[in-house]
Amino acid sequence: MVRLLFALTLLGLTLITAFRPQQKTQNRKDPRPNIVLIVADDHGREAVGCYGNPAVKTPHIDQLAAEGVRFTNAFCTTASCSPSRSVLLTGLHNHANGMYGLEHREHHFSSFDTVRSLPVMLQKAGYQTARIGKFHVAPERAYHFQKVLRGGKTNNPASIGRSPVEMADLCYPLFSEASEKPFFLYFATDDPHRSNTVSASGMPVFKGDKANLFGNRPGGYPQVHDVFYQPFQVQVPPYLPDTRATRMELAQYYESISRLDQGVERLVALLKETGQYDNTVIVYLSDNGAPFPGSKTTLYEPGMKLPLIVKLPKPQKPGFVQDAMISWVDLTPTLLDFAGVRPDTVYSQGRSFKSIIEQDRATGWDEVYGSHTLHEVTMYYPMRVLRERRYKLIFNIAHELSFPMALDLYHSFTWQDVRQTGRKLYGKRTVEAYLHRPRFELYDLEADPHEVRNLASDPKHQAILKRMQEKLKRFQQQTKDMWVSKWEFE
Amino acid sequence: MVRLLFALTLLGLTLITAFRPQQKTQNRKDPRPNIVLIVADDHGREAVGCYGNPAVKTPHIDQLAAEGVRFTNAFCTTASCSPSRSVLLTGLHNHANGMYGLEHREHHFSSFDTVRSLPVMLQKAGYQTARIGKFHVAPERAYHFQKVLRGGKTNNPASIGRSPVEMADLCYPLFSEASEKPFFLYFATDDPHRSNTVSASGMPVFKGDKANLFGNRPGGYPQVHDVFYQPFQVQVPPYLPDTRATRMELAQYYESISRLDQGVERLVALLKETGQYDNTVIVYLSDNGAPFPGSKTTLYEPGMKLPLIVKLPKPQKPGFVQDAMISWVDLTPTLLDFAGVRPDTVYSQGRSFKSIIEQDRATGWDEVYGSHTLHEVTMYYPMRVLRERRYKLIFNIAHELSFPMALDLYHSFTWQDVRQTGRKLYGKRTVEAYLHRPRFELYDLEADPHEVRNLASDPKHQAILKRMQEKLKRFQQQTKDMWVSKWEFE
Repeated sequence: MVRLLFALTLLGLTLITAFRPQQKTQNRKDPRPNIVLIVADDHGREAVGCYGNPAVKTPHIDQLAAEGVRFTNAFCTTASCSPSRSVLLTGLHNHANGMYGLEHREHHFSSFDTVRSLPVMLQKAGYQTARIGKFHVAPERAYHFQKVLRGGKTNNPASIGRSPVEMADLCYPLFSEASEKPFFLYFATDDPHRSNTVSASGMPVFKGDKANLFGNRPGGYPQVHDVFYQPFQVQVPPYLPDTRATRMELAQYYESISRLDQGVERLVALLKETGQYDNTVIVYLSDNGAPFPGSKTTLYEPGMKLPLIVKLPKPQKPGFVQDAMISWVDLTPTLLDFAGVRPDTVYSQGRSFKSIIEQDRATGWDEVYGSHTLHEVTMYYPMRVLRERRYKLIFNIAHELSFPMALDLYHSFTWQDVRQTGRKLYGKRTVEAYLHRPRFELYDLEADPHEVRNLASDPKHQAILKRMQEKLKRFQQQTKDMWVSKWEFE
Repeated sequence: MVRLLFALTLLGLTLITAFRPQQKTQNRKDPRPNIVLIVADDHGREAVGCYGNPAVKTPHIDQLAAEGVRFTNAFCTTASCSPSRSVLLTGLHNHANGMYGLEHREHHFSSFDTVRSLPVMLQKAGYQTARIGKFHVAPERAYHFQKVLRGGKTNNPASIGRSPVEMADLCYPLFSEASEKPFFLYFATDDPHRSNTVSASGMPVFKGDKANLFGNRPGGYPQVHDVFYQPFQVQVPPYLPDTRATRMELAQYYESISRLDQGVERLVALLKETGQYDNTVIVYLSDNGAPFPGSKTTLYEPGMKLPLIVKLPKPQKPGFVQDAMISWVDLTPTLLDFAGVRPDTVYSQGRSFKSIIEQDRATGWDEVYGSHTLHEVTMYYPMRVLRERRYKLIFNIAHELSFPMALDLYHSFTWQDVRQTGRKLYGKRTVEAYLHRPRFELYDLEADPHEVRNLASDPKHQAILKRMQEKLKRFQQQTKDMWVSKWEFE
């Protein structure tokens, strides 16, 4: 049946329209909305049209924002793929759910068996749950989805993430089948992550002498219209050096993002075709910031301040811009709230923002916490962060170490070019400051949005430092953070 | 049946003798030996009678050495419980089997699903496999034993490890049942580990103002004759400060060891009673060194140079002292070799020492490698070690960090006393040198057995340093060590 429908979708939307179930959701007895959670891989906020970048073409993500709510203060809590997804799917900081670092290969981190995840709780609440694309969390039984949508002619799930339109088509059966249950779809693309080239021995092979392709390939992907960018067209964000190498990589990055945007287009089109759109909560976000040194794996603003768009089933204020500060620990309680699960039955370290989603100047949403420990297993660099509206405190627990570089970022053209040319400055920060950090970093983001003037040892800011240190320590105690011991041992 | 036999064993050995199967193994068609692997928890070599300590009473371990082979150059590869056991049971360094740190609670490390362990391979080779006591490795399916012997009136396996005589009694059914298959018994005590007192919140509670009890308790354990020690009676090894606090803790430690020794006594007695003794390979060893700062969690000699006694089924040279250098990666291939498994079918990073076990001056056994990464998940401190007969090289990969202290060692009376009295010296080493280490440590163990004079920057030793660095790096490459990247990034 899936294969048949897949073949049909390939004939195009015209043909699919013929099978369109008219307003099926209105016939369903269960009035609760469907939920579609789109998780982009490494999509930095500075490379989204509706977040102010006129160069990158993301018309369909922008359209979602035009119809929904666009958050301007949304943050991941850890800028690493598996840990961040574990937070999204549990409502627990990764130090509390066990996913301290990457899940795959030798890194081999996994959440505790006792963790109860969003799909498991939604299934229990009567939802049908399905996922497609990148998973990257473990153990499977803790993060169990009822359906795993796979496909393509090769039946190779690994290839699907780079073909987001094909991914969307594979979701058609879920949208169109007659069911008494609402669905939860977890739609996780590989775009716009860097391409990994893995050698026979399993070690990544990079040369760092040309731009990474970010999944782009000659001939493109089925039904995707390649959108090409020239290096002179891209916008270099302030945290990156404005070099030819960076621009060449950003051009490839943008191409990957525009492919992803077409996946969103198709997904929305199919939700409309099947009559589901007006009863579906659609969330668009990224696991962490862009895959460049200075963003991903850091908890500086480019790494943790991310796109978040929520399209409600019946928007009261289309195009609303929400400035409440929320973080990825809040996603699970919020989506459970949409599903009618009583908040007091949900164990989470976040809280639902459903009730304030279209509310102006919501009170009590003025700080978020971050907690990052590892990315690759060799990259131990625990950081704990308190981000208020004006001030940000970073506790670099293992600050004596050089900041560890992810293999793909270390071997990037952008970084290798900086090394080879001996540049001292990387974006607004010196290379030296990027690699060697003090125990505490305190920034006044109003005066210093690029986080380059550390106020932690400034006499005028000692009261603020102390206040924020106390809050951060309390956060660690309250969220069962093993690394809270690092305050004592110093 | 198990309960019945257990009840019978409680009536004493006299009664059991009545049921004694006469020379059962000679009737068995399969002539291969049984294997009993006794793993003590934190039993440092300096606290064993037959290794030269006249103060501690270990007559039955000593008797095993008198009948078997005593190794004088046996080493664990990582001085942490779960990682070391994973090495023992796989023949792979823990960086290659995935058990980078402790298995339990929040630490949550586990080996790769693809790992094939000793019990699994022995089962495949036709052995019946059973374990009792501390397990501490994961996942279960990778380290599967057919039987898990539990018991006691409380049926609480956690309590059994402190009652090694009771543990031995629980093995009686395995020894006495009629079976066509030889058995492999993994016998892992909690003795002589420190007692853990865990609070309701799951955090350890220690005060550091009196001696830890090392599992000793008023009233003792069933069938164990408490052997008490006075602080003045103990031998303080050179790596510890000779203080009242240390002596009080060593007295408790010795008591725990003498309890463990009685477990060995009972185990041997039951093997004899059931006619198995003369066809059983018995191995006695410890996972790592003594639970004191300066030993456990370090790869200094007290942490990694350990007791190893192998009692052969038919010793040719009872009491033989073997000085070949072997390490815990060699155990799995050796025991499989005893079981008749062809070495070329075993994937291991060690090699069998069966053929040289009673051989004088065996050639080609002159170096071992160590690889330690974490103990608790907060204790990232990767070390790679090449230990030759004369020289030892330690590569402290994260040397910029203070050496992390395990909670139980940090809160020990021994260590807290040193902190509170402000002592500068801890054993032969300064506290400062213990906590802050250079990237490389090179020791001439002939001239400097206590590893206090680092020769890594001595001009006369640069050729040796370079030669050993090259070997160490090659070892990392050959054993798929992710941390080999740390040479490049510096």
